[in-house]
Amino acid sequence: MSDIPSNKPYLIRALHQWCTDFGFTPFMAVFVDSSVEVPMEFVKKDEIVLNLSIEACHQLQLENDWISFQARFGGVPRKIMVPVSHVLAIYARENGQGMSFPFDASESKKSKDISPENAEKPKASRPIFTIVK
Amino acid sequence: MSDIPSNKPYLIRALHQWCTDFGFTPFMAVFVDSSVEVPMEFVKKDEIVLNLSIEACHQLQLENDWISFQARFGGVPRKIMVPVSHVLAIYARENGQGMSFPFDASESKKSKDISPENAEKPKASRPIFTIVK
Repeated sequence: MSDIPSNKPYLIRALHQWCTDFGFTPFMAVFVDSSVEVPMEFVKKDEIVLNLSIEACHQLQLENDWISFQARFGGVPRKIMVPVSHVLAIYARENGQGMSFPFDASESKKSKDISPENAEKPKASRPIFTIVK
Repeated sequence: MSDIPSNKPYLIRALHQWCTDFGFTPFMAVFVDSSVEVPMEFVKKDEIVLNLSIEACHQLQLENDWISFQARFGGVPRKIMVPVSHVLAIYARENGQGMSFPFDASESKKSKDISPENAEKPKASRPIFTIVK
């Protein structure tokens, strides 16, 4: 199963598009370790919630491996880089609808500072099902 | 919650794209009642599984309310029309990865022949989560 390419980035893009089409604000929760480039002063309990709306982000790129953009935090432009493996959820701020993902520690072995405690912090059940007929 | 526009068509399109990009064959399982236009001779236990690959389908349209295309069944071209509400699952034939959806009987009240037995046939847990912080 680990050889199967992840469909997580496709689902993230889909939910971002859904939010955008209906005027919702796409919020993304991220598990933060050293592989994530975000303003650390806004990180709480190893997590940060980012606004992915077109209005808030410049040069937003939702790639298969990385999500990147520029945004202002306290008026200061900052560069954001998030590995898709570290995305915990994407949802509409207005109603909470969206999807959460388990944090896959095995995808993050390159990271330097994942403690076992953090690595065991999946947010919800897997969005990817195997169909059993 | 019922006032929130469904993100199901976005997820279906995302998984179809994922399959296509990686050379998998997108299969779609559909709950069949009178609102679904498919070759009835291939329906088993109120369900049909359709091949949504680019090679198998002509004029494939994955819209927010309807999925439609033309395909050959036994050499005969047929028009397929499926309400998105009746999609039970979309997955890659080669590995079974994808997503299943509950069958939402409330979305199908227009249909003439849904028995309570059929209406109570969700396939798996909801893919749409509400984030609780």
